[in-house]
Amino acid sequence: MKCTVCRGPAVIDVRRHNSAFCSDHFVKHCHDQVRRAIDEHHMIEPGDRVLVAVSGGKDSLALWDLFAGLGIDADGLYLGLGIDEYSDESVEHARAYATGHGRTLHEVDLAADVGFTVPGAAESTHRSPCGACGLSKRHLFNRFAMERGYDVVATGHNLDDEAAVLLGNVLRWEVGYLGRQHPVLPAADGFARKVKPLIRLGEREMAAYCVVRGIDYQVEECPMAAGNRHLGYKEALNAIEDRSPGTKAAFVFGFLERGHDRFGDDVEHERAALTPCTSCGAPTPSGVCAFCKLQERVTQVPVPSGRRPG
Amino acid sequence: MKCTVCRGPAVIDVRRHNSAFCSDHFVKHCHDQVRRAIDEHHMIEPGDRVLVAVSGGKDSLALWDLFAGLGIDADGLYLGLGIDEYSDESVEHARAYATGHGRTLHEVDLAADVGFTVPGAAESTHRSPCGACGLSKRHLFNRFAMERGYDVVATGHNLDDEAAVLLGNVLRWEVGYLGRQHPVLPAADGFARKVKPLIRLGEREMAAYCVVRGIDYQVEECPMAAGNRHLGYKEALNAIEDRSPGTKAAFVFGFLERGHDRFGDDVEHERAALTPCTSCGAPTPSGVCAFCKLQERVTQVPVPSGRRPG
Repeated sequence: MKCTVCRGPAVIDVRRHNSAFCSDHFVKHCHDQVRRAIDEHHMIEPGDRVLVAVSGGKDSLALWDLFAGLGIDADGLYLGLGIDEYSDESVEHARAYATGHGRTLHEVDLAADVGFTVPGAAESTHRSPCGACGLSKRHLFNRFAMERGYDVVATGHNLDDEAAVLLGNVLRWEVGYLGRQHPVLPAADGFARKVKPLIRLGEREMAAYCVVRGIDYQVEECPMAAGNRHLGYKEALNAIEDRSPGTKAAFVFGFLERGHDRFGDDVEHERAALTPCTSCGAPTPSGVCAFCKLQERVTQVPVPSGRRPG
Repeated sequence: MKCTVCRGPAVIDVRRHNSAFCSDHFVKHCHDQVRRAIDEHHMIEPGDRVLVAVSGGKDSLALWDLFAGLGIDADGLYLGLGIDEYSDESVEHARAYATGHGRTLHEVDLAADVGFTVPGAAESTHRSPCGACGLSKRHLFNRFAMERGYDVVATGHNLDDEAAVLLGNVLRWEVGYLGRQHPVLPAADGFARKVKPLIRLGEREMAAYCVVRGIDYQVEECPMAAGNRHLGYKEALNAIEDRSPGTKAAFVFGFLERGHDRFGDDVEHERAALTPCTSCGAPTPSGVCAFCKLQERVTQVPVPSGRRPG
């Protein structure tokens, strides 16, 4: 297998591009794809303060590294989810990258700063841990960015992630989510801009990028996500991609070109109707926001049975 | 396993309905689902002359039988595709059903009546046999209905078929096809109404219906379809359905409720621009229709090399 660019020995093939790359040209390929995503979707403007949501996994560390390679100065924020050894190991990878590359890593710890953990939230609400985790991440990354004056929150969602989320949304025709699914969510009252610069790169490319660049990352999948629907969608798409390379890219980019705007009305309408959360001030459809409700429910001290009201 | 209705021994469970049925109540379940599909989508009006597209497989024979059970008088049309023993066996099943149940079966033979077969078309056009087959079926069923005064062409597409086609269409965001994907395509100039009364019943239910009703059908899959993309989509959806029963139904019916109309403009626009095929008169976007082009290409006698023009 030879590099499509220089004919030297290739380290990875990218079937959907009908290409293979040596280490140097693979890094360039990744730079080019991220640059193209940023430019096409106007993700980052000159002077923007950028915050990377860093999990310690391959995608977020690769994103942080790719930003540096493209001359984009970005700080990281690690959110401690309290998932036992998985979280303990993840934060070490995030810290090691920051220290080794002279970057600023902020840390917020769910247990210490907000009073609960993801497993605790799942247990006391009898709901999926992934739901509580996603809600907490969206809320706290945004809150941190707003409080510290960051213009942009960049996340490491890659092409495989976006394709799987899109599949879940079309399988249930979640028209509100489809209207919101975009590599850029513009800033609005109470919201920093959200961007996904890895949308043109797949999961396998991100792992290869970390290997090529010598970045140590958390290789374990989150133990709480095992068997969730999202992973089922990924498997289904992998089976289809294997027969027809390029399916995921055509699915995601075709949606952006010809699908997304057909679901737009719902979002504008929803956003116009948001009011500040009466507890934390974040924009919410009504009264107290979902995160504050979760926090209240998980952290409240149970009322002893003898004193239960009514 | 007990029948959800009468608590007698069940012969089949239907996970997405969280139900199981004895033979009698399973037949009733199928009647109810077809009746509901017909009523909800106004598929058949009193006095309509109905033509069933009969392949000899489980779906089309079950549909013909379900029509009889619901008091809907329908004739069948079998289209001989010229796929060797597969076609020879298929037509025998269609004829046996018609004879055994006193129904009228028309037959059109591609080779004898139009001058080519599906394998021949695939070979001489170097295209997928499924493309030539689908094109020929759509064209010839419609032509037959128009010539013989049938108001409605009913096909045996079931829930699994529709879900797989829908998945293919959203994976490529084929907005024109999405606008046309509906259990009813209304009649228009040159087009009979097209209806899919089995849209609320799955593949497994159709096989079970034939077994319960003692209908012999072609059990082999078409040998030319092996490995095609459509079957890959079915496998992917089966894997997802297995984890989350009801996914296919939510996908198809959610599309009809919240998705379909968002893709409608393209269809109206396309239909308005159709003109009669200069060869056969069928509505077509321009000049000669796709079927006549295929027919011309496949049946033309090759010009001997010494006499090749220019």
